[in-house]
Amino acid sequence: MARMNLRRAFLGFAAIVLTAAGSCLPALSQQPLNSHEVHPDGSITFRFKDLGATRVQVQLDGAPAPLAMEKSKDDPSLWVAVTPPLAPAIYGYSFDVDGQTRLDPMNHRLTPNLLFRSNSVKVPGKTPQTWDALDVPHGALHHHFYTTRVVLGLAENQSDYFVYTPPGYDARRAKPYPVLYLLHGWSDLANGWSEVGEANFILDNLIAQGKAEPMVVVMPLGYGDMKFVLGGDHWGDPNAINHNVDLFTQALLAEVMPRVESAYRVATDRDGRAITGLSMGGLESLTVGLTHAGQFAWVGGFSSAAAPVSANPAVAALTAKSVDLRLLWIACGTEDGLTIAPNRELVAKLKAQGLPVTAIETPGMHDWMVWRDNLTNFVPLLFKGKP
Amino acid sequence: MARMNLRRAFLGFAAIVLTAAGSCLPALSQQPLNSHEVHPDGSITFRFKDLGATRVQVQLDGAPAPLAMEKSKDDPSLWVAVTPPLAPAIYGYSFDVDGQTRLDPMNHRLTPNLLFRSNSVKVPGKTPQTWDALDVPHGALHHHFYTTRVVLGLAENQSDYFVYTPPGYDARRAKPYPVLYLLHGWSDLANGWSEVGEANFILDNLIAQGKAEPMVVVMPLGYGDMKFVLGGDHWGDPNAINHNVDLFTQALLAEVMPRVESAYRVATDRDGRAITGLSMGGLESLTVGLTHAGQFAWVGGFSSAAAPVSANPAVAALTAKSVDLRLLWIACGTEDGLTIAPNRELVAKLKAQGLPVTAIETPGMHDWMVWRDNLTNFVPLLFKGKP
Repeated sequence: MARMNLRRAFLGFAAIVLTAAGSCLPALSQQPLNSHEVHPDGSITFRFKDLGATRVQVQLDGAPAPLAMEKSKDDPSLWVAVTPPLAPAIYGYSFDVDGQTRLDPMNHRLTPNLLFRSNSVKVPGKTPQTWDALDVPHGALHHHFYTTRVVLGLAENQSDYFVYTPPGYDARRAKPYPVLYLLHGWSDLANGWSEVGEANFILDNLIAQGKAEPMVVVMPLGYGDMKFVLGGDHWGDPNAINHNVDLFTQALLAEVMPRVESAYRVATDRDGRAITGLSMGGLESLTVGLTHAGQFAWVGGFSSAAAPVSANPAVAALTAKSVDLRLLWIACGTEDGLTIAPNRELVAKLKAQGLPVTAIETPGMHDWMVWRDNLTNFVPLLFKGKP
Repeated sequence: MARMNLRRAFLGFAAIVLTAAGSCLPALSQQPLNSHEVHPDGSITFRFKDLGATRVQVQLDGAPAPLAMEKSKDDPSLWVAVTPPLAPAIYGYSFDVDGQTRLDPMNHRLTPNLLFRSNSVKVPGKTPQTWDALDVPHGALHHHFYTTRVVLGLAENQSDYFVYTPPGYDARRAKPYPVLYLLHGWSDLANGWSEVGEANFILDNLIAQGKAEPMVVVMPLGYGDMKFVLGGDHWGDPNAINHNVDLFTQALLAEVMPRVESAYRVATDRDGRAITGLSMGGLESLTVGLTHAGQFAWVGGFSSAAAPVSANPAVAALTAKSVDLRLLWIACGTEDGLTIAPNRELVAKLKAQGLPVTAIETPGMHDWMVWRDNLTNFVPLLFKGKP
């Protein structure tokens, strides 16, 4: 793997060995391509090399359409595009080369995902942003593995989840920590919220600023049946959707939560438990939260796949009294063509049932910039005030 | 990011929303390309689509040269190569398209690395392999973040390390757990050994089989100065090499180890501490281990960048008595054109000094297949027998 490159990189080193003289060879002279150069005004110059390409575009989070790249006059293999000044954020992007998605070969920041490949680039703020890794006390991320009896389609039935513990976490603290169950979207893995969402840094910063309660955050694998994501697109099949949510719910309630509650000093009552998620995870968090109100008093959904929630008879039967939530927070980006309509429909339906929905609309599409912002705004509302 | 694909994937779902009828649309009919098909005999068919390409190869771990791919007669955009039957292993690979490295767009298994991009594919064994995630008790991986005063070139001075705790880890156990410090190679990040090396599963399996002591494994970021990896190739500059190793050593001894020893129930004496690493990490583990013999009694190096160890005056001054190791295990693949010669030279030098080197040569090149095998064979030797 990358053996030729590694060999080339070691060449100077090998030369030392051969001559046994420790002679200092010059470093490789070729300047690496600056493929994603962020300028002080927040604009980004993207560069991509492909001599054979006839059309190259860059697909950028938050941009309504792909940006066309132009062939450089000086170098016929070099394609260049400059964005307008962009707001501070972490932007996902990929190149489209004659219709094929291509990663940036010069950027090691890859977005882990089962189906969609992309890179990311950070436009820094003039001041630190919530998702930055800063010099503040940090929590830790714990990755756990276990044999599931519920989730289908995993190799050797091995499933996993991540747990964030806040800075100074004390397993013997008298008062249990409140716990947030945080669910990823379709095509993500259990590491979506930590690797892409920067959830641990967002929590670190909110806690350092005194805006959030120190809490434990649990990020489980979000599928009940891996076929739902690896077996093609089943979003047109309500049975498949419900089957996946049902099995996920079982895995969460019967496998993940008991493991977390025995290994961590976390609340086991509804007032100390919150659940939210993004897209498919929002479908799951709203479904689990609304239909297991005895277990969760704080419920959210970010850009949720909301139509199956609206269609859920158990949800339709809820009353303000039966569900008695401390928070029901339903957020969506106004440019999210995938889920804004069903979210508005769900909000209207729940309000009509008398449920105290906090409906949030923000600028933005169906992407991580919206979800990092949602998490930043949702977490400070949790576990505050008297029941 | 990948918005168009996501939009297409949600189409069926959106249709439900629009019709509010829950009608079941057919799944997308296009069959995804099976880009890395593993056959029962262990051979792999690689497939890659690029209509404009004129030459496509697959670079495969363990293969002495890239495999040429042939254009399909039925589909002029499809390139195909079939390997010979391969031994059970996780193989790294990438495509070379007209001289450019390209990732497999159909494989979500990406190898995280600062410089070299690749995918991986597993050829399973007829029986479970050491690196497989199996139905055995699992340890956990803990990811820690901290502000470094030593390591140069990190954003906001934020560094990190991973800690593996064995199954059933008990923070209040009377006897501290022995601890292995496990170092990654040049261009890897702190997650190299866990994400690519499968170190946690190797430990789980060895412990389940009774072959290894339950131990804690610490996997720190392995650079003293990020310029050493991000600032071009410095392997020809002994000063740069030593500067990087010196700063790394400080970070390990003064920052990582005290943090680990205060947070985990681990040994703090030399008999309970081991250190090893691969390639650059082997240079570091041999340098630290041999020149801090008061702190580590078990020392290893896998495919080590060994020449700077040979050139180290402090190492040259060692005697069997002064170093007094329980284990000094130096391994390399015989087809490793980068490091086999300097490893043999180092072994000869250390033996001439009277040090009790266990010199291991295995088939293999400079790749993770060798290192997973090294770890599997090194770990059972640790913390056994009386001093």
